[in-house]
Amino acid sequence: MKNIGILGSTGSVGKQALEVVRNHKDKFKIKFIAARSSVDELIKQSREFNPEYICIYDKSKYDQLKNNINTENILVGHDGLMELCQLSSTDVILNAIVGYNGLEPTLKIIESGIDIALSNKESIVQAGHLVIKLAKSKDVNIFPVDSEHSALWQCMVGEEKKNIRKIILTASGGPFRSLEAHKFLDITVKQALNHPNWDMGPKITIDSATMMNKGFEMIEAYWLFNINAKNIEIVVHPQSIIHSMVEYIDGSIKAQLSNPDMRLPIQYALSYPDRYELNNLKFDVEKFSKLDIQPINLNKFKCVKLAFDAINSKKSYPVVLNVSNDLAVELFLKEKISFTQIPEIIEECMNNHNCIDSPTLSDILSLTKWTENYINNKYSS
Amino acid sequence: MKNIGILGSTGSVGKQALEVVRNHKDKFKIKFIAARSSVDELIKQSREFNPEYICIYDKSKYDQLKNNINTENILVGHDGLMELCQLSSTDVILNAIVGYNGLEPTLKIIESGIDIALSNKESIVQAGHLVIKLAKSKDVNIFPVDSEHSALWQCMVGEEKKNIRKIILTASGGPFRSLEAHKFLDITVKQALNHPNWDMGPKITIDSATMMNKGFEMIEAYWLFNINAKNIEIVVHPQSIIHSMVEYIDGSIKAQLSNPDMRLPIQYALSYPDRYELNNLKFDVEKFSKLDIQPINLNKFKCVKLAFDAINSKKSYPVVLNVSNDLAVELFLKEKISFTQIPEIIEECMNNHNCIDSPTLSDILSLTKWTENYINNKYSS
Repeated sequence: MKNIGILGSTGSVGKQALEVVRNHKDKFKIKFIAARSSVDELIKQSREFNPEYICIYDKSKYDQLKNNINTENILVGHDGLMELCQLSSTDVILNAIVGYNGLEPTLKIIESGIDIALSNKESIVQAGHLVIKLAKSKDVNIFPVDSEHSALWQCMVGEEKKNIRKIILTASGGPFRSLEAHKFLDITVKQALNHPNWDMGPKITIDSATMMNKGFEMIEAYWLFNINAKNIEIVVHPQSIIHSMVEYIDGSIKAQLSNPDMRLPIQYALSYPDRYELNNLKFDVEKFSKLDIQPINLNKFKCVKLAFDAINSKKSYPVVLNVSNDLAVELFLKEKISFTQIPEIIEECMNNHNCIDSPTLSDILSLTKWTENYINNKYSS
Repeated sequence: MKNIGILGSTGSVGKQALEVVRNHKDKFKIKFIAARSSVDELIKQSREFNPEYICIYDKSKYDQLKNNINTENILVGHDGLMELCQLSSTDVILNAIVGYNGLEPTLKIIESGIDIALSNKESIVQAGHLVIKLAKSKDVNIFPVDSEHSALWQCMVGEEKKNIRKIILTASGGPFRSLEAHKFLDITVKQALNHPNWDMGPKITIDSATMMNKGFEMIEAYWLFNINAKNIEIVVHPQSIIHSMVEYIDGSIKAQLSNPDMRLPIQYALSYPDRYELNNLKFDVEKFSKLDIQPINLNKFKCVKLAFDAINSKKSYPVVLNVSNDLAVELFLKEKISFTQIPEIIEECMNNHNCIDSPTLSDILSLTKWTENYINNKYSS
């Protein structure tokens, strides 16, 4: 029986993780769940899974939670969240917090010596050098939850690291794969939220439309698998069946495939090194009939180029890339900026920040603040 | 340094194995080479690789070999071949003998406790129950050399057997994938020898055209990976880039890909568990741009259906399937029978033989003789 903690249990990944647990009650026990503000969903989940601890980040929702759940162990706010990250009776904590607020919990979990199933890719994007170093020193496993990194991880099982020549990250290309570059200016929020293959939260769906998601994944792969960015190739694979590939020094390429279903990478992160049954997900000669692979157009998807620029620069660049993207996406979702302004704002922030070679956590928080202020002052009014 | 022995060194697989060794002289040493009758090539190979033992199966070529090679250790005929199979100073013996004559060497190698790189799939097809049982009792590894089984093997590295749900064998479909069934009668030897993707010997090329090759591979997978035939799906993949796939119980599918190049599975069988550099073989977004997967038409490719029938019957059926196919292909290559007669003759032999549940080696030799006689009497005159 594995004790599982979930940060961000009411989000898209969190809910699917609970579905995985629901299907394997003999294998998983929910130790705690935490949500930012979706208190109704959190109450529902608490009643079903009966976790030992429940945490609500938004203090204004505390009373509602307390009045509806019959337990002493209700935690609240930042302190409550941090307390959960140190619950050493937990075997794996899934960090499914969306956005750059996921970093502090990630570091705290690793510091506590608890294995982490990491859905919050921003943790690695903005502080890969800190996260990986800490995980090594604490001998903590980071299990990727992204479908692409789960694919890479699965393709590497049983293989030696020294024999890896290259990583091939696949990208659906999002809803604008075939749209001409000059039409990007007119992209609406509604269009951008309409992802062809994956059912995800709004922030990640926009990151997929700009393909920044793939830029982040490249940076995540760089850190998680300790591979040079020049050995990471991004290709467009519209069907989202091949979730990524690893090329070995003998030219052998391993790929991991499945119909798009986040339950698989979530479950694998929790079941590893074992695998458990997952029904209704299987090879289908019809659905797998056309597997196309195309080169990526970096002139059209500028966010990907910015991500390569960032990882090839001093380590403050990915921080600014990540935070400015979070905020620019938020502005786009609020219809305050256009779709093409997302990479423009990111590039502007990257160009204007005071770059640092290897930022500490405090540097990262300062860079985050600086980026927030810069964007708020210029674009949010 | 691994000591390698090669049976069938002048054939297509044998030559490519020597190329692998040529490219990794620091890792491999050729202990012996053996050929049926291509003495000129054998002399050339002996001069280059300087093996400790050289064997020519065809006794009439012995003098030519002896007069051209400066070594005492020249072996000849069946006895010579069997002697090599017991050379315990060899780390791995590649059995690249083509056809059903490969079985006895396979059993002898395993009996001698020597790991075997098995290209001779007939060994497994006709005597899987004997070969696998013996290998288990002698704790000998059987490393598959077929691209498909190498793919399956690679996809299983690091995974637990109990978690395998299904095997998906890919088939190029051969040169007649798109040909209508009623035109199969007119297929010429020249057309059948013209395989679109792989450069192989004539016998295997015809097996690929009839798709019997895939039937044999299904039987081979059944034995090598101990998997029920109903959990083996054959699909057509015209590009021969995806060499096969394994589906796990969580719906995750692993595939192994590369441009078609037999050096890769040959090298992997020799380098396992390590991998060595193999230049010029790599991911190529252009060549991998279209990966199509289609169902197989068993009404058109009757040999595959016969293979499923055989493995689902008593174990004498695969023996007769294999031997009658060898002989029917030979007759077709000599233009004595038509392309469509190949499955007809096989089915006729399968229907007419005295079936046995678990044939011994002696039974297999009797069944072989029976099949030879049956076909010779009826079709060879």
